Amino acid sequence: MKNGKFITFEGTDGSGKTTQIKLLEEYLKNKGYEVVLSREPGGTKVSELIRDLILDPANTEIDPLTEMILYAASRAQHIAQIIKPSIEAGKIVICDRFVDSSYAYQGFGRGIDLRLIADVNRVAIDGISPDITFFLDIDPETAIKRRINATGADRIEQEKLDFHKRVYEGYKKMSLLFPDRIMTIDAEKPMDEISSQINEYIDTIL
Amino acid sequence: MKNGKFITFEGTDGSGKTTQIKLLEEYLKNKGYEVVLSREPGGTKVSELIRDLILDPANTEIDPLTEMILYAASRAQHIAQIIKPSIEAGKIVICDRFVDSSYAYQGFGRGIDLRLIADVNRVAIDGISPDITFFLDIDPETAIKRRINATGADRIEQEKLDFHKRVYEGYKKMSLLFPDRIMTIDAEKPMDEISSQINEYIDTIL
Repeated sequence: MKNGKFITFEGTDGSGKTTQIKLLEEYLKNKGYEVVLSREPGGTKVSELIRDLILDPANTEIDPLTEMILYAASRAQHIAQIIKPSIEAGKIVICDRFVDSSYAYQGFGRGIDLRLIADVNRVAIDGISPDITFFLDIDPETAIKRRINATGADRIEQEKLDFHKRVYEGYKKMSLLFPDRIMTIDAEKPMDEISSQINEYIDTIL
Repeated sequence: MKNGKFITFEGTDGSGKTTQIKLLEEYLKNKGYEVVLSREPGGTKVSELIRDLILDPANTEIDPLTEMILYAASRAQHIAQIIKPSIEAGKIVICDRFVDSSYAYQGFGRGIDLRLIADVNRVAIDGISPDITFFLDIDPETAIKRRINATGADRIEQEKLDFHKRVYEGYKKMSLLFPDRIMTIDAEKPMDEISSQINEYIDTIL
C-alpha cells in the first residue's frame, strides 16, 4: 500500500540540491502537504553510525566493496525506519540522494561494477523506488575549476576533478537510461527559475 | 590465482567449533603448513567495528535486513583484507563461520528470504568460497536443555530454543543441498574421534 510520494534529488556537490529541496519543501507545505525531508547517507541514528564508520579517517583500510555494501546497509535502515513508513502514512518524502548516488559515485566514480551495486541495492531498497528524481545538471569542471583557481591546482585537485567528471557523466547516462523517472534540470539557471520548473512538474504528479 | 585452501567450520553455539579449529590448526602446523585462523563476524578492525555496531544494545532499532547487509559488509572486508590475500599467498585459512551462518541464522533463524541473503553475499564474497566446510552436528535441544535445567526455563529460553532449532534445521538442509562441500560431523562423539575424522579428510584434499 503506497499513498504518499517519494521524490529524490541527485547531482554532484555544489549543484544546489540543498537550496532546491528547501524551496520544494516550502512550496509543498504551503499547499498543505505533510513533507518529510531526509538525506543519504544518514537520516537515522543507525545510518549515521554507519556513515561515521565509513568517513572516519582512522578507517582508511575500508575496501571499496565494503564501503558500497555499508552505504546499502545505511540505506536499508533509512528505508525501514523513515522512508517506507512515511510514504505509507501518505506523506511526501524528499530525499537528498538515493540509489542513483551509489551508481554515480561508487560505480562510475570508483569503478565498482554497476551490476554488483544493483544486486545489493535491490535487496536494500525493499521495493521502494522514487516517483520522480530531479538531476541538477551543472558542469562539474566549471564548479571545481573555480575552487582550483582559488586555492591553486595540485595533483589531488586534478584527481578530484577527474572523479567528479566521471560521476557527472554517470548521472548523464542514467538520465538517458531512465527518462521517465529522472528529470534533468539545468542547474546553471537562476535559482527561482529552477524552483518554478520543479514545482510545475510536481503539480502534475500530485 | 588460488594456491592455498579455505576451510570453514559451521554449527550452532556449543557444537565445539573452537576446540576443533585449534586441533586442526595444530595438526596442519605440525605438517609444516602456514595456517591463518579467523572468525566471523570480525577478523579485521573494520569488521570488528561493524560487529560492535550490530551488537551494541543501544542500537535495538537495527532492521533485520540492515543487520543482514551489515554482516555481509563485515564479510567483504574480512575477505579483502585477510582471506583472499592469505589464500593467494598459498596459506591455509581456517574460518570460524562464513556465509552458511548467514543462511542459518538470518535466513532459517530470523526468516529473511534466502535469495536476498544470496544476492548480497554473492557480491560480498568476491568469488571466494570454501574448499571444505565442516558442519559440527549436535542436537541444539540437548545442548540448550542442559542450560535450561541449570538456570530454569522461561519464555525467553523457549524462544531461544525454537530459534536454535530453526538454525540447526537450516544447517541440516544446507548439508543435504551441498554434499560435495559440506561435510557433516557427528559432534556428540568424543573430541579426539572428531579431530581424527577431520584430519583424515583434510589429508585427502591437501
